[in-house]
Amino acid sequence: MVILSYIVEVQSATLARMLTVLATDFSEEEQARWLALLRDAMPGETLVTEVGAGRATDVDIAIVANPPSGALAGLPQLRFVQSLWAGVDRLLADPTLPAAVPLARMVDPAMNEAMAQTALWAVLSLHRGFFDYAEQQRAANWQPHAQRRADEVAVAVLGLGQMGRTAASRLAANGYPVTGWGTRDTPVASLRTCAGDAALASVLAEAEVVVNLLPLTPATRGLFDARRFAGMRRGAALVNLARGAHVVEADLLAALDSGQIGRAVLDVFESEPLPASHPFWRHPRVTVLPHAAALTDPRSAARVVAANVRAVRAGAAPQHLVDRTRGY
Amino acid sequence: MVILSYIVEVQSATLARMLTVLATDFSEEEQARWLALLRDAMPGETLVTEVGAGRATDVDIAIVANPPSGALAGLPQLRFVQSLWAGVDRLLADPTLPAAVPLARMVDPAMNEAMAQTALWAVLSLHRGFFDYAEQQRAANWQPHAQRRADEVAVAVLGLGQMGRTAASRLAANGYPVTGWGTRDTPVASLRTCAGDAALASVLAEAEVVVNLLPLTPATRGLFDARRFAGMRRGAALVNLARGAHVVEADLLAALDSGQIGRAVLDVFESEPLPASHPFWRHPRVTVLPHAAALTDPRSAARVVAANVRAVRAGAAPQHLVDRTRGY
Repeated sequence: MVILSYIVEVQSATLARMLTVLATDFSEEEQARWLALLRDAMPGETLVTEVGAGRATDVDIAIVANPPSGALAGLPQLRFVQSLWAGVDRLLADPTLPAAVPLARMVDPAMNEAMAQTALWAVLSLHRGFFDYAEQQRAANWQPHAQRRADEVAVAVLGLGQMGRTAASRLAANGYPVTGWGTRDTPVASLRTCAGDAALASVLAEAEVVVNLLPLTPATRGLFDARRFAGMRRGAALVNLARGAHVVEADLLAALDSGQIGRAVLDVFESEPLPASHPFWRHPRVTVLPHAAALTDPRSAARVVAANVRAVRAGAAPQHLVDRTRGY
Repeated sequence: MVILSYIVEVQSATLARMLTVLATDFSEEEQARWLALLRDAMPGETLVTEVGAGRATDVDIAIVANPPSGALAGLPQLRFVQSLWAGVDRLLADPTLPAAVPLARMVDPAMNEAMAQTALWAVLSLHRGFFDYAEQQRAANWQPHAQRRADEVAVAVLGLGQMGRTAASRLAANGYPVTGWGTRDTPVASLRTCAGDAALASVLAEAEVVVNLLPLTPATRGLFDARRFAGMRRGAALVNLARGAHVVEADLLAALDSGQIGRAVLDVFESEPLPASHPFWRHPRVTVLPHAAALTDPRSAARVVAANVRAVRAGAAPQHLVDRTRGY
């Protein structure tokens, strides 16, 4: 992947304010696509792709996708930051992030939908033995396995935010008995939901498949460690679609090798891209995805950005503001 | 798999008629499970596991799972045959099958549900690139791909019987634009449906994923041949969950190698178990399942059998009778 950083300005025709897009995550092709879609979504704004000398003082809104460290600190008039990504843990970890500026994370309906698809695919694959059949195919081994109904496979979804709720509801709609756990209890139709440490222990003890969609915060970092794995049902599967730092990778490898954890489907890792030498790549009971469980869809996300920019320009509150003390 | 044949009798307490179970498909363990469930589902009947001398004339109902050839011809009082399997093509191909005896195929709600799960898993895997990611994992290759929405992936489901309708509806409920095609047009809620040869050509030309759930009949045997593949969208995927004989395997291999067919997910084959030397096992764009897309669930199927036996004993019509001229 080409990593580049660039600055784009949007000249507001009416207010003479500017938007800056700061990103280290885009290829040139992705950059061009985002710019075209942002232009289409904000036709009232003039969008430029280079910052001229002295213009930093004109910028009051930044649109970011992992900006270069310090870049936001150089914008003295900054009054709103919109993340193009749903997870803002890397952004919040940057000590140069201006403390007083409101920050919105991306809530993209297409991304929520993609996450629900990935969660459903992982649970179907585990429930119906499709990972086992893939292993058998490599050995030309014809061996059907016993078949269970979806209502016999207890699934836990950790995280009841936008993505957790969408994924949990989709799993329930496809016949799985789903328990949703969040740091705060959030009622969701057709789900049993709960919150708190004691509830987490019993949810994990019962589930055959655990889908992690928690935000990464100081409270959830390293949540899946040796002690937690020991409290799970023997042979249970872990599906981590949230952040690599939720899982202590050495502990997961040990739990897989002891059989305590039966299989892991991992989209996220402590270090990304996952180093070629990492044992997860070759572990027979680990499925590695390249952080692709759910991508922001630039088409719908550009409309979300435009709505928030319009709100800020109109003096109204933008949507999905991050609570920095909570961490998401 | 242990292949055995056995005969079980159910002595009707009131009518002194008998049920015979004839099967070549069961392991000893499976046999014991079926017998226990059939006994539970028909408590008014006496079930025996061996036919004594001269008892063939007492048997009037046979429950079959690929019976030994000729076995049904030896039952002169036979008045009803219930298949434990949904597909009756092998049964109808047996020239010793008594021509005048009504035959019911299995319509098991748990099996329909399992088929819908497999179809959904296959379409999700194709749409979201999960087969590609599995290939990449073997090469420790970290490469996310572009993401599309479900509504951008045109799916065709061939066959609008019990399984086709359930699978097509499930795919539509998960966001895919589905066109259903059957030999007869059968309206299904939330689907575009059609029938006839001309419609089939246009359905196949448009679909990115084609899911085959047709019954195997003289009209559908060899349906997927070189001419048909040439009429499909370039790079389309074939998901065959019906019968191996629907597909001309040499033609499919050629279409895969030319890129005309992008990927195949195959649960059924001309010869099963798929011979270890068959190129499908090792083809990088073929997913082999061991005829496990949907198994009859003995728990629900035993209740379906019992309901049909009660109907026959009461002089009423059993459900899901096979039309032998149609072939299903």
